[in-house]
Amino acid sequence: METIRVGLLGCGVVGGATLRILRDHADELAARAGAPIEVVRVAVRDPERRREVELDPGTTTRNAADVVEDGSIQIVVEAMGGLEPARDLILRSIRSGKHVVTANKELLATAGGEVLQAAGTSGVDVLFEAAVGGGIPIIRPLRESLAGDRVRKVMGIVNGTTNFILTRMAETGESFAGALAEAERLGYAEADPSADVEGFDAAAKLAILATLAFGSGVVATDIPTEGITRVTSEDIAAAHDLGYVVKLVAVAETAGQQVSVRVHPAMLPRTHPLAAVRDVFNAIFVEAENVGELMFLGRGAGGAPTASAVVSDIVEIARNIVSGGRSPASAGYSRRAAIVPQEETLVRYYVVLSVLDQPGVLAAVAGAFADHGVSISSVRQEGSDDQATLVLITHLASEGRHRATFDQLEGLDTVKEIASKMRVEGTTEA
Amino acid sequence: METIRVGLLGCGVVGGATLRILRDHADELAARAGAPIEVVRVAVRDPERRREVELDPGTTTRNAADVVEDGSIQIVVEAMGGLEPARDLILRSIRSGKHVVTANKELLATAGGEVLQAAGTSGVDVLFEAAVGGGIPIIRPLRESLAGDRVRKVMGIVNGTTNFILTRMAETGESFAGALAEAERLGYAEADPSADVEGFDAAAKLAILATLAFGSGVVATDIPTEGITRVTSEDIAAAHDLGYVVKLVAVAETAGQQVSVRVHPAMLPRTHPLAAVRDVFNAIFVEAENVGELMFLGRGAGGAPTASAVVSDIVEIARNIVSGGRSPASAGYSRRAAIVPQEETLVRYYVVLSVLDQPGVLAAVAGAFADHGVSISSVRQEGSDDQATLVLITHLASEGRHRATFDQLEGLDTVKEIASKMRVEGTTEA
Repeated sequence: METIRVGLLGCGVVGGATLRILRDHADELAARAGAPIEVVRVAVRDPERRREVELDPGTTTRNAADVVEDGSIQIVVEAMGGLEPARDLILRSIRSGKHVVTANKELLATAGGEVLQAAGTSGVDVLFEAAVGGGIPIIRPLRESLAGDRVRKVMGIVNGTTNFILTRMAETGESFAGALAEAERLGYAEADPSADVEGFDAAAKLAILATLAFGSGVVATDIPTEGITRVTSEDIAAAHDLGYVVKLVAVAETAGQQVSVRVHPAMLPRTHPLAAVRDVFNAIFVEAENVGELMFLGRGAGGAPTASAVVSDIVEIARNIVSGGRSPASAGYSRRAAIVPQEETLVRYYVVLSVLDQPGVLAAVAGAFADHGVSISSVRQEGSDDQATLVLITHLASEGRHRATFDQLEGLDTVKEIASKMRVEGTTEA
Repeated sequence: METIRVGLLGCGVVGGATLRILRDHADELAARAGAPIEVVRVAVRDPERRREVELDPGTTTRNAADVVEDGSIQIVVEAMGGLEPARDLILRSIRSGKHVVTANKELLATAGGEVLQAAGTSGVDVLFEAAVGGGIPIIRPLRESLAGDRVRKVMGIVNGTTNFILTRMAETGESFAGALAEAERLGYAEADPSADVEGFDAAAKLAILATLAFGSGVVATDIPTEGITRVTSEDIAAAHDLGYVVKLVAVAETAGQQVSVRVHPAMLPRTHPLAAVRDVFNAIFVEAENVGELMFLGRGAGGAPTASAVVSDIVEIARNIVSGGRSPASAGYSRRAAIVPQEETLVRYYVVLSVLDQPGVLAAVAGAFADHGVSISSVRQEGSDDQATLVLITHLASEGRHRATFDQLEGLDTVKEIASKMRVEGTTEA
């Protein structure tokens, strides 16, 4: 049996775990792939660094070109992350006829079209199961298991750091800052947590999910993104009282021939499957025409879970090499999706208003909603002294109508402030 | 482009929905498969019966042999269910070089080895994504996404009828009989509900999951099976007070070189992902060495969800025909698993004892557990008049040791009865 020759770019947490699994499970993997799989070259920045997995000096290089230009290598595994030089190295690998496995969400969310088109031209496979949801099988199910269906909506909790923070805030009453500090202490948050807490990591993953789910290309910059830095423990407690939990959701749904995409904190009904997703777990909820509702849950990060997905891609390509087959193309990267403008996205809002406790206030507030065609699903008034609080949940209406309503509310003499507002997702209406 | 020719055996709920999707989504499916897919023959018992989907009289036959013996048909979709004649028709199809898609769990759980070996001999694909969990992608993830990992445990809620009944009992305090009657009224339970409520349906699905997860064949008769007919609303309320929910679980786990399999009602901690699976939803929880914990959730039955999975299998085979490829073999059907004897299976139990409220009772009870090497994780005593109740949860110990303990407890003068007992699953210990 011919040995399948693999080159590895980067040997950090994910690359190292990939190397370990390929070594430890070599016999089982050979049986599944139909041929032994061998890592013949590993390119790293610092070969001297201590790692969990020992590098063979004979196969280690500082020069990524030694992998990319090695004509004997059939599969390049890119585990460096970041846009460059990963993009350049992947494109060169593809053009020299190598198959590629990558977990690089930034690259796919930015230059996925370029990479997948190059793969099509060169007739090679580019697989990226690990790019979204770590070890959760979601790319392959979207590409293959739902090939007999039409996806209408994807809603994911795809960032473990923020889900840990929101879970802590909900379960212990901790503030955002306190929960973030704890995430840092436990190694769940990076030194600069902004990519996580501002929602950019989730947006990159959503771009990939939306592209595969709807078969038309969405890039990260298409996605209006709001993080969780302004979510307070009071918001979470108020949501709890109403039967909701607060999650950072990444949403993509069809709207006629267009696609609506967004990342923001949202209130979900406590009975929604995503509401039970705690701590650093990730989950992706999918609604399709025939299958109805599906959810995929698991650990969205970490070396071993992510490497498990990387290795499944390596096995798939190895099997293709042995059998002469090809993996189904990742449809969607060849054309750009038409994106619904954010103002026209249909949403529901939870709004808390501090108002003066005097006659006519409710009429004025209700009037502001009515003036912009936003209808109110529920309202609750709580009074104390000469001041009262109104808690409202709206029916589905456009983001633009909601914003115009909020502007008008802020101009009312009887409204002291919009104390809080948050979108509501996962109700049967939305 | 060559048209892929499909023959359909049976046109009930699943067959009809399959036919509808193949017609309604014809263009998309052709694009994904690389060739148009056409149903050229449909065998049904009664062509005159009114159906949701209209049959073309020119392609309809009463004679299944017209499908199996039609040399132009490339894919046979078996949607009849039951062991015979499905088994015979599938084997004849395979031997004449046809690929097969089936949702037939009874057949796979009984004669899966025979069918898959025949497929290997004839060089055809036999796919069965719809056989477990309806539309939930679980077969393909086990076969492909976890190809780079080692599965340790599979625990599923794989029967929607019983999950609906248990959800009702928990949320409304309804009795088993009352909840079953409601399931019947809503069309979730069949006229004879015994296959569901006695756990046999779950056992058939577990046989398939275990075979794929561990790569060695498990058949339905290997699986000790207990249904939910003896679960009371008092059990469920008591579980709730302790922070648990009651679910019918299908469990398969590795134990050295052996496999432990079982279907029974169990108490799960409320924070376990399976605990949030409500109503007719199904979910399969998987633990693997590298990826850690995964869960797959969705609608486990119904025409459209099941047909969505059937069509994904048809598309995969059509793509194989176009590209000359083959699907990865479903490993495990070529050899039999070594099954852990039920007496040796490691479990935890929740036990409620009615005891006399007199000195020495707790010592005698604790002694019975100690005599058989079963250690107690928690105990709670509630007294009233001259009678008391002891609620105990044990640590992991064999089923046999637990049973011997129960026998001894029943022989004690101070123990009036074992009022209730149930296994506990999904704790970090188990």
